[in-house]
Amino acid sequence: MSKYLLKCITCGKEFAKDEVDYYCPDCGDRKGTLEVVYDFALVRKEFEFSLTSLQKRGIWAFDFLLPFEGKIDFPELLVGNTPLYKSPSLSRKYGIREVLIKDDGRNPTASFKDRASAIAVAKAMEKGFDTIFCASTGNAASSLSGLSAVSGLKSVIFVPSTAPVAKITQLQVYGSKILAIEASYDRVFDLSMEIGMSMGWYCRNSAINPYLLEGKKTCALELAFEMEDDLPDFIFVSAGDGTVLSSFYKGFEDMKELGLIEKVPKIAGIQAEGSAAIKKTYEAGFPFEPIDLEATTVADSICVGKPRDVIKACHYTEAHDGLLLSVSDNEILESIIELARETGVFAEPAGATAFAGFKKARKLGLVGEKDRVVIVVTGNGLKDLKNVSAVLPEVRILPPDRDAIEEALK
Amino acid sequence: MSKYLLKCITCGKEFAKDEVDYYCPDCGDRKGTLEVVYDFALVRKEFEFSLTSLQKRGIWAFDFLLPFEGKIDFPELLVGNTPLYKSPSLSRKYGIREVLIKDDGRNPTASFKDRASAIAVAKAMEKGFDTIFCASTGNAASSLSGLSAVSGLKSVIFVPSTAPVAKITQLQVYGSKILAIEASYDRVFDLSMEIGMSMGWYCRNSAINPYLLEGKKTCALELAFEMEDDLPDFIFVSAGDGTVLSSFYKGFEDMKELGLIEKVPKIAGIQAEGSAAIKKTYEAGFPFEPIDLEATTVADSICVGKPRDVIKACHYTEAHDGLLLSVSDNEILESIIELARETGVFAEPAGATAFAGFKKARKLGLVGEKDRVVIVVTGNGLKDLKNVSAVLPEVRILPPDRDAIEEALK
Repeated sequence: MSKYLLKCITCGKEFAKDEVDYYCPDCGDRKGTLEVVYDFALVRKEFEFSLTSLQKRGIWAFDFLLPFEGKIDFPELLVGNTPLYKSPSLSRKYGIREVLIKDDGRNPTASFKDRASAIAVAKAMEKGFDTIFCASTGNAASSLSGLSAVSGLKSVIFVPSTAPVAKITQLQVYGSKILAIEASYDRVFDLSMEIGMSMGWYCRNSAINPYLLEGKKTCALELAFEMEDDLPDFIFVSAGDGTVLSSFYKGFEDMKELGLIEKVPKIAGIQAEGSAAIKKTYEAGFPFEPIDLEATTVADSICVGKPRDVIKACHYTEAHDGLLLSVSDNEILESIIELARETGVFAEPAGATAFAGFKKARKLGLVGEKDRVVIVVTGNGLKDLKNVSAVLPEVRILPPDRDAIEEALK
Repeated sequence: MSKYLLKCITCGKEFAKDEVDYYCPDCGDRKGTLEVVYDFALVRKEFEFSLTSLQKRGIWAFDFLLPFEGKIDFPELLVGNTPLYKSPSLSRKYGIREVLIKDDGRNPTASFKDRASAIAVAKAMEKGFDTIFCASTGNAASSLSGLSAVSGLKSVIFVPSTAPVAKITQLQVYGSKILAIEASYDRVFDLSMEIGMSMGWYCRNSAINPYLLEGKKTCALELAFEMEDDLPDFIFVSAGDGTVLSSFYKGFEDMKELGLIEKVPKIAGIQAEGSAAIKKTYEAGFPFEPIDLEATTVADSICVGKPRDVIKACHYTEAHDGLLLSVSDNEILESIIELARETGVFAEPAGATAFAGFKKARKLGLVGEKDRVVIVVTGNGLKDLKNVSAVLPEVRILPPDRDAIEEALK
């Protein structure tokens, strides 16, 4: 008797955990995304949680709600257990009851994606793979690279050859095999599937691998346990291909199913204006049909024109009366600066997108003065210094002269 | 009755906590460094510690051994409580009992220096200052900048105009006033003292401000509580101006005085070959006279030719029979890569210097097979991607062709 099975989000067919690895064979790779469904009677028996365990084991403190049975061979880096800060200054400034910041840039490779990569690496070990691959230039790649390294698992990263050198450097340091291909991201993705699967490697591509969502949902679980019976009214999080957004709903729904929380907070998915495919699809109404577009935004982690998890994100948003908003690149860059100055948390563009969305929602009256709000920062600003510098003034150079310096201080 | 006083390391004169802010007026700013001395009878009465408190409050869980009395107004970012990892793979590779990695790059602004800046900001608040300053281009500046921001304290950073743009960007984001001066670091330091003091700002310059060491020592306290009665035989840490090295001795000595540990572990201070002023001074023997030099190394955080804390570091090393070693820039850069691949921890050059020193000590037989060793990583590799890329091979660009890619994989 297994504590979980895999269910196709389109045809609803259920598969035993060892029956299939990635997606429903009948519905294919975009429509046939599989979701992990638990047997909550079994989960309840296993349930045991403490904050001390969260501190020592990170996301593995939630093993009762993760798709593993028996001893887990997980990467020995502390993933999750990221700080949740109250910000009295933002609460005052925006006139609401409470603003809290969840700083997921404090993960081992400095992004939220570590939560998903940790699960993927542990799954690869459990299934006996010796190599894991993904197509990405961003946080998914660096987190897979770092977490594979400590586990002694080989990793192969497919990237478009136009990827920024700095991002490739990090992957090289961790010892990943890098395949830099002269092609668009979409073509690189397809090549990764073709080659990775034929080589017999484990796949860590988003919305292909059903277990990634289970890793991502641990942020919601963390919030639920940290805030206990006083859950926020809104959680703001940036949205690109939709899996992060969906993962918050999944995490809270699992917690509710388990009887640990009473209601699922409203989730606000924030997209960049130039990359708002989920919002567009959602606004076109039910039955949701993916509206793809040519994406462009400074927030590279959410620059997705063909979101792989759009349908699920729309269904969740509708079911929970959630929000989907978009913000401009300028609003994103200015939000990085405001967030850093008010809270000391330096976010990458996609990380500050959630904050920009909060400001917009407050302005539109969607968030009221009695509300408590959590803003999830999904990545550290050190990952992308270039974009924000564009909106900062030039630094004036001063002569080594006391009078001149004191004059400049006036 | 105060629980602490300040004592001059040269003439031994003692000052009440409000009598003096920075250094002994008789001995001046380099020789007259003040050290915080506790009344351990009072500390013992206050003593209370739990790992839960460390998780929630970070370094403030050690308030009994910090130079504050009553309620502390501290910056609301979680400083300290960084992960300590066992590395079975490094233990095997180097044939010793155990290698552990303390990843202090997991601090809020991604370096060990947050421990010191947090104390400085809290002191500035306690003393009623509204502005704090320092001269630095590195981790001290970014951590002061971030921790001041969240506290609503103004910060002024004096930097040489040659400082890398990326480092200045981070300070600008946090809203610091940046004074970029066309002069050497030493001249900029002097100008910062002249102007900062005359403006009536609080000073966070290393070895001037006696409280910084108390913040830095919290890493030793954390190790002592995490490892309890099984302290390591050696702790490896990089050394530039000597305060970080000294802080480990101070932390363990305070713990011993308090009766919580029995012996102080041996500390190994690792310097870059081109910046080994402390090692040179130490090897010239007692009575220690500072040997200054023109420093040059890729590890910018420890590139110090005129270390301000050299005497204290030498005294501590002698008293505890510690080690002082130096490693080449190439050994440092290669250690970044090896450390990342074996442990998943990506270190900046100064952070990997400690690991390079460990390898040297093992090779020289200074570390034996029965030893347990902690390597302290003082900063995250994302802070300096440029230097390490110099020792990585160029990435070959491949055509979008399956055969060509599979050929490249052979």
